[in-house]
Amino acid sequence: MSDRQPMKVALVGLGTVGSGVARILLEQSERIRQRTGIGIEIVHAIVRDPSKPRDVSLPKGILATSFDLMEDPRVDVVCELIGGTTTAGDIVRQALNSGKHVVTANKALLCEQGEELFQLAREKGRTICFEAAVAGGVPIIEAVSQSLAANQITSIEAIINGTSNYILTEMLDRNVGYEDAVRKAQDKGYAEADPAMDVDGTDAAQKLTILAQLAFGTRVSLKEFPRQGIEALSLADLRYADDLGFRIKLLAVARLNKGRLELHTQPTLIRSQHPMADVYDAYNMIEIEGDAVGKTWFSGMGAGQMPTASAVVSDLIDLAVGRAQLTFPLLDLWGRRPPLPVLPAEEIERRYYLRFHANDQPGTMAAITNILGKLGISIASCIQHESEIKPTRGQGGGIVPLVIMTHTTTEGQMREADIELARCPCIQPNYLRLPIRG
Amino acid sequence: MSDRQPMKVALVGLGTVGSGVARILLEQSERIRQRTGIGIEIVHAIVRDPSKPRDVSLPKGILATSFDLMEDPRVDVVCELIGGTTTAGDIVRQALNSGKHVVTANKALLCEQGEELFQLAREKGRTICFEAAVAGGVPIIEAVSQSLAANQITSIEAIINGTSNYILTEMLDRNVGYEDAVRKAQDKGYAEADPAMDVDGTDAAQKLTILAQLAFGTRVSLKEFPRQGIEALSLADLRYADDLGFRIKLLAVARLNKGRLELHTQPTLIRSQHPMADVYDAYNMIEIEGDAVGKTWFSGMGAGQMPTASAVVSDLIDLAVGRAQLTFPLLDLWGRRPPLPVLPAEEIERRYYLRFHANDQPGTMAAITNILGKLGISIASCIQHESEIKPTRGQGGGIVPLVIMTHTTTEGQMREADIELARCPCIQPNYLRLPIRG
Repeated sequence: MSDRQPMKVALVGLGTVGSGVARILLEQSERIRQRTGIGIEIVHAIVRDPSKPRDVSLPKGILATSFDLMEDPRVDVVCELIGGTTTAGDIVRQALNSGKHVVTANKALLCEQGEELFQLAREKGRTICFEAAVAGGVPIIEAVSQSLAANQITSIEAIINGTSNYILTEMLDRNVGYEDAVRKAQDKGYAEADPAMDVDGTDAAQKLTILAQLAFGTRVSLKEFPRQGIEALSLADLRYADDLGFRIKLLAVARLNKGRLELHTQPTLIRSQHPMADVYDAYNMIEIEGDAVGKTWFSGMGAGQMPTASAVVSDLIDLAVGRAQLTFPLLDLWGRRPPLPVLPAEEIERRYYLRFHANDQPGTMAAITNILGKLGISIASCIQHESEIKPTRGQGGGIVPLVIMTHTTTEGQMREADIELARCPCIQPNYLRLPIRG
Repeated sequence: MSDRQPMKVALVGLGTVGSGVARILLEQSERIRQRTGIGIEIVHAIVRDPSKPRDVSLPKGILATSFDLMEDPRVDVVCELIGGTTTAGDIVRQALNSGKHVVTANKALLCEQGEELFQLAREKGRTICFEAAVAGGVPIIEAVSQSLAANQITSIEAIINGTSNYILTEMLDRNVGYEDAVRKAQDKGYAEADPAMDVDGTDAAQKLTILAQLAFGTRVSLKEFPRQGIEALSLADLRYADDLGFRIKLLAVARLNKGRLELHTQPTLIRSQHPMADVYDAYNMIEIEGDAVGKTWFSGMGAGQMPTASAVVSDLIDLAVGRAQLTFPLLDLWGRRPPLPVLPAEEIERRYYLRFHANDQPGTMAAITNILGKLGISIASCIQHESEIKPTRGQGGGIVPLVIMTHTTTEGQMREADIELARCPCIQPNYLRLPIRG
């Protein structure tokens, strides 16, 4: 095969991930030649600012600034690694329109414009690869779309936001508050300068929509399911859960539920004995259940330069071998099958963890339990913790943390309870409600 | 694509796994058609005894007894699922010689005849798929050969014998002896009537040679590395390890060690906090470390009808899509690259757990520690447990269990110590030595 030409790549974006991809392609070229039969060659590395220092040294003549070099007839594949969605979308369209395959790590782009971009790729007979868009170095796209293809996948549960998981681990294991943990995540390079999309659950929900579409062959939009971030969690909440034998993790769930699709991305209490409770730092874990294979787990670094670059290069290798071109037309993504109905949020059934800061005075407990009882929400356990807030002298009782675990109930009933509880004068407004993994 | 013909399969063997494969292909035919574009059709199911009851109902005219039906011109793929190595080898050769692709779950066959069969497949331009041969439903062959292809894999550590892991879990968690646990594994269908190959480490070592060859592109033979089973472990041993904060697991290891390949398959002490210590029952887990991706973990059921069938059908889907035919010629299995030298067993460096049943009399501890000290083996900790064996009346001291944990030393030094210790009259012959995971 060595007489065949290497596959030619234009890298667009040479930031953290782009530099990592370039390093693997340049430093491991012989290994990649063996695994592809033909090798992979970077012909252009297109950047906005060519004077910026980078942690990879490129051969002469490769660094460029014009996006139009993507259209160079020698280029087989365009690697979009600039992030964002506006320019990135234009790049992918330009690449597909000029007959190039595309590799991207950009889940936000896929969530926003996936339908249009996949349609364009199908029209042009070209391939979009996106292994790096979900769970970084963990080959979960390949697992869902190929390795487990003999199965009807019935359930996906995933810790797929490394930043949130790092922050939660840091808080509980190193005993620091939320703000400090966010700063540490930024210092470590896990969190962006503005980590809003990570900590508010958007990033995990975007990845979940991609996995859910692949696994269940249905269209899913971010707006269709409950999404909650980790910003409202305090160290005390993590400790209360720990005392009860649970860890709180940002858990993204998509599962078949009597012919409908149940979806949610929320901080969730997971029993300490479960493998997902043990996922620490910026690691990701995805549990997939299939009708034949049963439960399987995939875990590894969900972010970071080289793990993400590993996934991008594996996509490039799949294109060079020709596998990706065979797989893409068969993917059920933004697909042609009728959508599976999404279970309305109100009908999702789970147990819940409720944490109140309540006034330490007679009648408080009765007020709360009356609201829950009236709505048919059954209490499984209740713990009043020692107050962390000193009572103000002369003002009588202070504020006490109160934790209630419910039996199984519906999200709809809990939402009704939320409204009633918000009106209850004995409860502080920072009331926290989290689902418990069944 | 619906105008293209379905891929035609001859199943050879309709035992547990074969029936599972038939069930998926028959019951999920529409889903498989979607995922392949063409569908997969069973044209022959070849068995020795057609009157045997089976847990799948086949369409009329499919069940047959003649192996020559494999050569039916309509057949594209032969699925070898009869097990054993003699007839199975003949079947694979006959299939390849008549121009068919082959899918097999038979690691023993690959270990024994892989070189010849791969050579034949390459000559005939045909493909051998074997995802089910290692770790059942866990797609580890695909991970090593495709998903992590951007990486130089540096280390593989694996719990890949479900039967042994089930027995070890059963013993410690349900407090039963080795023999009882083996019987329970047989009742559950995990262990064969003769579980020798599972419990003596052969099965795990066979799977390790396949993984190691794929990951490191080198030839490895079973004879080249230490292999030890779980037969000598008692419940007391598992408890002593547990007291020290370790779990004993049958661990298969292949890692790069300064340009050489370190390999061993042995019951190994793993710290309780490590994810591999938590793998229970017949589950498998494989930890793969790559130079770019870092550590990744893959876990799921390593055996059983439907998990194994899931892997076989995913191979069939890969063939129907055409991916497998592209991947196979690039696999570095029984390959063409010069072999990587295997680190001689004597040079493997680890910590060790030593358990003695020693005579409870003065001078015993001195005798043991003198032997170790003379050979430069440094003791990290030492615990004398309460005797489980009642002293015989009038015979003075009884037999006491003594556990020593060493600092890092070589296998060579330990083998010298074994010889000296065997000569020591104060030690019972059931001395147990296990490595500790670093």
